[in-house]
Amino acid sequence: MRIMTRQLPASGLLAPLFFFFACSLLSMAFAAPVPESSVAPADSDNIPPQLLEQLAAIRTAALTDDYAYHQLAHLTENIGARPTGSPQADAAAKYVAGELRSLGLEVTLEPVKVPHWVRGAETAELTDYPGRVAGAVQKIVLTALGGSTATPDGGTTADVVVVHNFDELQALGRSKVEGKVVLFDVPFDKQKASEGLAFASYKDAVGYRAAGPKSAAELGAVAALVRSVGNADYRIPHTGFSIPAGIPAGAVTAEDAILIADLAAQGRVRIHLTLTPRKLPDTEGFNVIADLKGSEHPEQILIISGHLDSWDLGTGAIDDGAGVVVAMETAELLHTLNLRPKRTLRVIAWMDEETGGTGRQAYTREHSSEFGRYVAAVESDGGASHPLGFSFKASSKALESLAPLHEVLRSFAADDFLSVQFSPGADIEDMAEAGVPALGLTQDSRIYFNYHHTAADTLDKVVPSELRDNAAAMAIMAFALTNMRDTLPR
Amino acid sequence: MRIMTRQLPASGLLAPLFFFFACSLLSMAFAAPVPESSVAPADSDNIPPQLLEQLAAIRTAALTDDYAYHQLAHLTENIGARPTGSPQADAAAKYVAGELRSLGLEVTLEPVKVPHWVRGAETAELTDYPGRVAGAVQKIVLTALGGSTATPDGGTTADVVVVHNFDELQALGRSKVEGKVVLFDVPFDKQKASEGLAFASYKDAVGYRAAGPKSAAELGAVAALVRSVGNADYRIPHTGFSIPAGIPAGAVTAEDAILIADLAAQGRVRIHLTLTPRKLPDTEGFNVIADLKGSEHPEQILIISGHLDSWDLGTGAIDDGAGVVVAMETAELLHTLNLRPKRTLRVIAWMDEETGGTGRQAYTREHSSEFGRYVAAVESDGGASHPLGFSFKASSKALESLAPLHEVLRSFAADDFLSVQFSPGADIEDMAEAGVPALGLTQDSRIYFNYHHTAADTLDKVVPSELRDNAAAMAIMAFALTNMRDTLPR
Repeated sequence: MRIMTRQLPASGLLAPLFFFFACSLLSMAFAAPVPESSVAPADSDNIPPQLLEQLAAIRTAALTDDYAYHQLAHLTENIGARPTGSPQADAAAKYVAGELRSLGLEVTLEPVKVPHWVRGAETAELTDYPGRVAGAVQKIVLTALGGSTATPDGGTTADVVVVHNFDELQALGRSKVEGKVVLFDVPFDKQKASEGLAFASYKDAVGYRAAGPKSAAELGAVAALVRSVGNADYRIPHTGFSIPAGIPAGAVTAEDAILIADLAAQGRVRIHLTLTPRKLPDTEGFNVIADLKGSEHPEQILIISGHLDSWDLGTGAIDDGAGVVVAMETAELLHTLNLRPKRTLRVIAWMDEETGGTGRQAYTREHSSEFGRYVAAVESDGGASHPLGFSFKASSKALESLAPLHEVLRSFAADDFLSVQFSPGADIEDMAEAGVPALGLTQDSRIYFNYHHTAADTLDKVVPSELRDNAAAMAIMAFALTNMRDTLPR
Repeated sequence: MRIMTRQLPASGLLAPLFFFFACSLLSMAFAAPVPESSVAPADSDNIPPQLLEQLAAIRTAALTDDYAYHQLAHLTENIGARPTGSPQADAAAKYVAGELRSLGLEVTLEPVKVPHWVRGAETAELTDYPGRVAGAVQKIVLTALGGSTATPDGGTTADVVVVHNFDELQALGRSKVEGKVVLFDVPFDKQKASEGLAFASYKDAVGYRAAGPKSAAELGAVAALVRSVGNADYRIPHTGFSIPAGIPAGAVTAEDAILIADLAAQGRVRIHLTLTPRKLPDTEGFNVIADLKGSEHPEQILIISGHLDSWDLGTGAIDDGAGVVVAMETAELLHTLNLRPKRTLRVIAWMDEETGGTGRQAYTREHSSEFGRYVAAVESDGGASHPLGFSFKASSKALESLAPLHEVLRSFAADDFLSVQFSPGADIEDMAEAGVPALGLTQDSRIYFNYHHTAADTLDKVVPSELRDNAAAMAIMAFALTNMRDTLPR
């Protein structure tokens, strides 16, 4: 999950970070649940008893089905990390296409011109600092941010300036920043995260990852570092997208940020920094588009989706292999239970959510004329922890019409429906803006940012039973949306 | 903390790992607390009211004193990692000597001939495995174990054999092991650790780190890997001492062990492994020996100690900078409160606990003739989490005579006295074996092995208030032992 709007202002990056507030899932943290009392009595003919029975059967089957987990194991362990532009990303698209085809779906690999950035060496050490022992250095653990340019192969050496926000950087001005390495030492709010507001913690800190390097470059910095955005305290760095700044940009671990800041408070700190990522020519990737045609209204389309690309450090289990396999399992469950959707179910495995959204853009160019016929678009891109329910960028009448689903989802505590202001998924944002009801499958977020965008985003972080719960919630919502009498009111 | 007896059997490494049970602190997990009812009524003249008042004053001062924390910050942030043989280890010894001298202690830097092993490159990737995408590899995160030999600079490539215990290895035999890389995939028992039995979890797994490489080498393996010993799930590897095996030996992270084992269960797994550590010539290190002479019985000596050397990945905050600074603070508190010990207080910062115990051996050679005059020897080498109390390898009468201390220690819940069978500290083991009452300051161990021997053993893991509690407990015990009327019965 990238969690940034795609349209970044060309300038004014140091202005209040209002645009990060526009980030998809972030708003969930602040949205109020729909009060039960405001939900109108359900129209029992819209989701009739027979459909509710089918949804209950889907639930029963899903809660004992490890299809999603086995698919996730293949994506992460056999295929591995799937950064945009990599052979693994391509192979994953072809693999998912094949699996969905074997379930009877009509599958298209839609080409996407994607960026291709590859990580190189990444090392750093403090070469001078107060109290340094002759012959010693302090090793700094870091990783390059997506889009970072490279230092010379032999590295760059410069003094470090530590700031805690954009105002401090501006107050220093060019005279104190030029020729330096700027470190944005902005901690992740662990308390908020522990209270279930992890996306709010992320929002508070990620602006520095996104815009910090560019703002430092504008004042003449030779490189920029940010404190890793996330709540792990295991000295692992957290990568992610950063606005191209024309200078090397990295994330040091929280521990290393603390070390540098502590030493800089005592005197001069000098760093030797080597980051050698490369931007390769754009290449061709694929969105996987897989349709299970509707028996009554094939022209009405429901999207369920996750994104197939991942960052390169881990193997992309929680971000977002989990989202893809949960959507795949809906198709598998309908196949197994011999259930036919009345409207068309479209499973999408998106390419390039992480480094530019080119997959979403390509889809919109190709399919925007259909958006008026979309029942809804659902994405899961918040990990694989226990599902809480769904967030909706949709009309209140749409939520009301789904009230009967609470009963089906409540047995495994996945029945929290939240109304949100912004698209609850980056890949479905264009549809949301076009008025398509947009839903996010939401998860317990407390530990998501322990692993997100780090080397530790691996299969073992996914609890099979929790993944089953997610697959159940997705399949129930999907079959309800394809088979309820009326489409969701817009 | 190394947690191994120093006398490893020259052969029979695959025999039951009885010798690991002989490990210092491990036995604590199974030791019963001394029942209150078995404690004889205290001899109130032995620890008279005036001494109890002084101990209470020490407690009050310690619980608001950040001397230990500031010293730990200097050792970890300004000096940094202190591996045996490094310039930082030497600098740390000289720094601690200077600090203790400034408090009025008589300080000697006693030379120790120490081994000098330095880490080199350490990378690995799976180059063939079931389902591998052409052009892709699975990156493996690992670190060399102490004493590992090197691969060629360009690395070694071989198939991987996964075993879960020594019996499985033996059952495979030379025909299936020769020319292979053996992975010992033995998980750390997180459940036990969460129940406060982390040292028992460690004991269960560390035998493979210690003896696994040698047992694999004996069957012709070209390299050996172990699953990291510890309960972090953040893809960080855990180093530590391993019996020299003459082959490259590393620890992969838990995540990477799972990945390799999962893939190996499906088919052939091939690894390319590069580890280039070097064993340099032995060099000179130092034990720091600092005496505050006793006013009445200067010939009677109490040792309080921690070890100054650390592993090289982190900065050795919990293992064992904390132990050193807690012992230093006892001297600082007596200085500040103008309290004079009746017996000699000897603060020792040990060198080379981690890679061979040469510091302990040198001390024994130099000082064993004094052991008969030692009141007791105390070590803290279990981290800086909240202190539980003390473990004792001592007579039951010794424990009984200290019963009045419960009252002083209880206010901050550090009054748990445990009787143990083996030395509660590796550096004081020779004294313990010679009959000197041996005490370990014990800590809540639940998270100790999250960080121990990893890059994440850094200052931020130490909670200042918990370090204060440790310093208070150490100072109270130390002043009681130097100033009670009678020495501890042996």
